[in-house]
Amino acid sequence: MLTSPTDEQLDALAAMVGDAGYLPAGDDRIAPYLIEPRDQWQGTAAAVLRPADTATVSTILAYCNANLLPVVALSGGTGLVGGQIMPDGPLPVILSLERMNKIREVQPQNGAMIAEAGCILADLKQAADDVGRLFPLSLASEGSCRIGGNLATNAGGVQVLRYGNARDLVLDVEAVLADGSVLAGPKALRKDNMGFDLRHLLVGSEGTLGVITAASLKLFPKPGETVTAMLAVPNPSSAVQLLHELADRLGDCITAFELINGKGVEFIRRFYPNWTDPLAGAPPWRVLMEVAGPAAGGLADRIGPALEALLEEGLATDGVIAQNEAQREAFWWTRETIPECNRKVGALLSTDISVAISGIPDFLAEADRRVADVSTDLIVNSFGHIGDGNLHYNVYPAAGRSKGDYGNEVGRIKRTLYDLADEMGGSIAAEHGIGRLKRTDLGRYHDPARLMAMRTIKAALDPNGILNPGAVLPEPGE
Amino acid sequence: MLTSPTDEQLDALAAMVGDAGYLPAGDDRIAPYLIEPRDQWQGTAAAVLRPADTATVSTILAYCNANLLPVVALSGGTGLVGGQIMPDGPLPVILSLERMNKIREVQPQNGAMIAEAGCILADLKQAADDVGRLFPLSLASEGSCRIGGNLATNAGGVQVLRYGNARDLVLDVEAVLADGSVLAGPKALRKDNMGFDLRHLLVGSEGTLGVITAASLKLFPKPGETVTAMLAVPNPSSAVQLLHELADRLGDCITAFELINGKGVEFIRRFYPNWTDPLAGAPPWRVLMEVAGPAAGGLADRIGPALEALLEEGLATDGVIAQNEAQREAFWWTRETIPECNRKVGALLSTDISVAISGIPDFLAEADRRVADVSTDLIVNSFGHIGDGNLHYNVYPAAGRSKGDYGNEVGRIKRTLYDLADEMGGSIAAEHGIGRLKRTDLGRYHDPARLMAMRTIKAALDPNGILNPGAVLPEPGE
Repeated sequence: MLTSPTDEQLDALAAMVGDAGYLPAGDDRIAPYLIEPRDQWQGTAAAVLRPADTATVSTILAYCNANLLPVVALSGGTGLVGGQIMPDGPLPVILSLERMNKIREVQPQNGAMIAEAGCILADLKQAADDVGRLFPLSLASEGSCRIGGNLATNAGGVQVLRYGNARDLVLDVEAVLADGSVLAGPKALRKDNMGFDLRHLLVGSEGTLGVITAASLKLFPKPGETVTAMLAVPNPSSAVQLLHELADRLGDCITAFELINGKGVEFIRRFYPNWTDPLAGAPPWRVLMEVAGPAAGGLADRIGPALEALLEEGLATDGVIAQNEAQREAFWWTRETIPECNRKVGALLSTDISVAISGIPDFLAEADRRVADVSTDLIVNSFGHIGDGNLHYNVYPAAGRSKGDYGNEVGRIKRTLYDLADEMGGSIAAEHGIGRLKRTDLGRYHDPARLMAMRTIKAALDPNGILNPGAVLPEPGE
Repeated sequence: MLTSPTDEQLDALAAMVGDAGYLPAGDDRIAPYLIEPRDQWQGTAAAVLRPADTATVSTILAYCNANLLPVVALSGGTGLVGGQIMPDGPLPVILSLERMNKIREVQPQNGAMIAEAGCILADLKQAADDVGRLFPLSLASEGSCRIGGNLATNAGGVQVLRYGNARDLVLDVEAVLADGSVLAGPKALRKDNMGFDLRHLLVGSEGTLGVITAASLKLFPKPGETVTAMLAVPNPSSAVQLLHELADRLGDCITAFELINGKGVEFIRRFYPNWTDPLAGAPPWRVLMEVAGPAAGGLADRIGPALEALLEEGLATDGVIAQNEAQREAFWWTRETIPECNRKVGALLSTDISVAISGIPDFLAEADRRVADVSTDLIVNSFGHIGDGNLHYNVYPAAGRSKGDYGNEVGRIKRTLYDLADEMGGSIAAEHGIGRLKRTDLGRYHDPARLMAMRTIKAALDPNGILNPGAVLPEPGE
């Protein structure tokens, strides 16, 4: 049985990290460590420990394991599913990786970079750029999220179509297991088949199997040429077909393919009335796409005719290609401002589901129908990374109504959407993880054999259950 | 304690698979199931079971687990490290996946294909090609290896630089664990964060944690344009520098980058005296490279000037670009014929190591020096996928001597090379896995904490140790 640490135990932990690394429960500076972006949970803590190196992380975990003290590893804290917050139970030790923020090595010739868990994502992207290489993980929170958390949650973002999820960008990890044992490394190898892949077990486990302290990350040559276009499309089906035909016509060069709902654009207009829409006529749907190719390949010249052909086929009704970096940024601003406007409108429910790319149109049509069955006048803004089959299907109160007017309906809508994703062989947690928000949903929707295997692995690697208690794994029967 | 199955148990197993799926130990047809390509081991078997579906695999494993019977899963049997062969101990049940060879679904719009474990790799590549897409896993054995084994061993090959190892090409697996529980699926999603990633734990575990019965595989748009070139380079350092500068000049378009040793070319000349070398003057080293880009991008026009600039810098001394498909195939024939000639010459030792790409020149120079310290007149043919940091450093008897003339020296050479890879932060098993060949080496060179975590996971998921006993995991103390 886990317990809150005693004063004596806190003294021992404080001594491990020193004054610079210790914040006691009563300290004013502790508040930022106990909140999360959506304010759905208020965290608790016996203390915040901020170790400066891997050896100290090891000492802390060994001690907590021996004394049955809960530990919540904390990175940038930008996750949206409550994985970083322990709202109840015995008071945990918060293990913040923020002081482990050194880039240990940038190896452009090796296409690799070794970084500690506390490095800010934007800093890593800059360090890669400084040596003429690309670290492609691209998230709205990149200015404050940290790579340890990006890996622990297997973050997604807008470049997954070409470069994969966070797990696909990591060559190896250095990590500390519950008993304090240190998985040494990280090696920076492109091919390594020495035994089981522990890297991918830790990546995406949200701090429940171990604490990632450093990682070797893949760097890529920069694209020689990038073309960004915004297209008006009549419906989601056209968008999916367009993606497919572009792949046929141009080959393997599409790096981003985002679906934007006219409703999201309407939200933008509400909060940014001076915004100029690159497209005329307020189309019901639009696609923001990016293609990249080798240097001096004339991709911009070729994308025009390809898009014109697709316009002629009726897959798109209008389109504009960014003529310069400012225009490119303006296009992306549209996409990236939607979540902010969504928050301002205030969703009853926001989701992060995925289905097969080809299943997107059916999902959207059927979800609209089923949500309308729950309540006819709800507002829907569905959008997302459809090049990855990933949708954020968000539902808002009807005009003139507020969140408070909806009670059980919120749960029914969630159930409706998750049931549909599940029926279609999809996922209820595409890029944001399980955390605490979806723990019981995981129990409901996940394959029972996989859940059992997860429990078996958790029990084997963290037999005392000290690591992020209450996250990811549903309680038996939940 | 595992035991050989009794006659009664064999009857029960035979009934599970039916006549078409059962080969008893005495059957003439059993011989091909008990050999491996290098003839280093002779396998044993109580029987060969050839189930036709996942449910039967589940029934078999549940029965073997309950009765403590060893099970060796067998795919194409082309692996080079003895993972598919159990030469001693109680007689195992060989579980051949060959009859599970259906492509369940090809989904071009979803960039995915769902295939059973027994599908031949070349058939999968063809099925992708038939719908205008690419399944990039490319191995010399693709005509006979099967995807289940490719995934179980995390196979590499010549397209890893751009597309990753086998594990990077799989979206999800369907698998059966030791107790017969079936991990349902496979889903075909680009983003899925529902719990721990069991896929990557099974991929690369060489049949010791579960049996992969099917997988959803990633398909890619075909490159619009591919350019293949063979370059003479003065030394490996130039080759690595050339790779780096090409990435700078052309961006992210290099898909293959193979280093070829003049010694390997000498072997080709010995066995194929009529072969015409595309390059003049028998250069000491050469690079076979391929770049790919979007359609109609004029990549061929641009690669010429880029290579000329590199020639001027002295990074290459000669070069020729394939002008047609026949020439392209001739270039690749050179690369692919080296392993065959190596076998004909007869290596004392062949290795499959990796280091950082930037470490390749140092590895080669230092390995040559240390191997010469063991015995001055040994012949070395070192070559490989240097775009992935993966070398096959192979050592042959001196002229006029034979394998039998070398005793303990073989072990010393191996130790020398593995020590060096280890000192450089490399891997002693880059793309061929551990199997039985490198089990004790894994014990020697792998991080002890990782080995311990592997044992913990093995004990948790296969507590009776029925799955591929003797493969991958070293005995304690080994």
